[in-house]
Amino acid sequence: MDISSFIRKIPDYPKPGILFYDITPLLGAGDAFRQTIDLMYEQTCSLRPTKIVAAEARGFLFAAPLAVRFNIGLVPVRKPGKLPYKTLSASYDLEYGSNTLCMHCDALESGDRVLIVDDVLATGGTVQAMVQLVKQCGAEVVGCAMLMELDALKGREKIGNTPLCVLMHV
Amino acid sequence: MDISSFIRKIPDYPKPGILFYDITPLLGAGDAFRQTIDLMYEQTCSLRPTKIVAAEARGFLFAAPLAVRFNIGLVPVRKPGKLPYKTLSASYDLEYGSNTLCMHCDALESGDRVLIVDDVLATGGTVQAMVQLVKQCGAEVVGCAMLMELDALKGREKIGNTPLCVLMHV
Repeated sequence: MDISSFIRKIPDYPKPGILFYDITPLLGAGDAFRQTIDLMYEQTCSLRPTKIVAAEARGFLFAAPLAVRFNIGLVPVRKPGKLPYKTLSASYDLEYGSNTLCMHCDALESGDRVLIVDDVLATGGTVQAMVQLVKQCGAEVVGCAMLMELDALKGREKIGNTPLCVLMHV
Repeated sequence: MDISSFIRKIPDYPKPGILFYDITPLLGAGDAFRQTIDLMYEQTCSLRPTKIVAAEARGFLFAAPLAVRFNIGLVPVRKPGKLPYKTLSASYDLEYGSNTLCMHCDALESGDRVLIVDDVLATGGTVQAMVQLVKQCGAEVVGCAMLMELDALKGREKIGNTPLCVLMHV
């Protein structure tokens, strides 16, 4: 399957000069979406994760089916104020300012082997914040699985030696 | 499986007097999460949907695995400004003011049989907006699947005769 044929390129979104990769045609094509989850599973099952961690909202779209495929729990990472119980938080820098992500403080245990899942690896800020959240719980990040990597943005450098599974490079 | 044993009750969230039903323990328990998706599938497969429609962010957590289980496409409904292509929109009333939800204009075709999926049926505003979006495309809503229904809020009245599958009533 050629995943890139299901990704729509949208120029000047969200602002002029940015080429946005729209994943909704992939989600909308049942066979292709299922095969994508199968591929992510095949490429990460040797990491033997015990939990999947993913950030809202697009990360949930790949992380939830993958968690069900693995038969392991999913831990949602959300923006401040969106999780109802006690949370840990981690911040990352943006071009101007910073963003904060939160996770429930009891979502992981110290022995957990965590697979971080997202749709796109761009500058790596989101994944870096998720790694920090996992470490705050004393759990281990055993790998990251991303649908797409925007190679020019070098987000890969933010996760060091952690195994990274990517289905499509742009 | 007793789904309610995986739902954490949080008093006074998001504001005083509200009892919030936290689904994160269910997501975090791999077996229970997978069984929940299995139950949703068993209770809706006779509706023969061709697409699943779900709203961000928590709706994605159940809709994405269910779409993979059905081997059908998933159509994300998001807040304004979050979808990159041309969108349709529908609004619904809140206690004070209103909310708007958007869907890509080419996400559904006129012959599509749509299953709407969400975590909680409360006042029914979100599901009502999703029904409107589906109808704007000339597609048909064949059913709704919700993890939980807050019976006292009577959201069920907003969807008329549409078949409704609910796994847990509170």
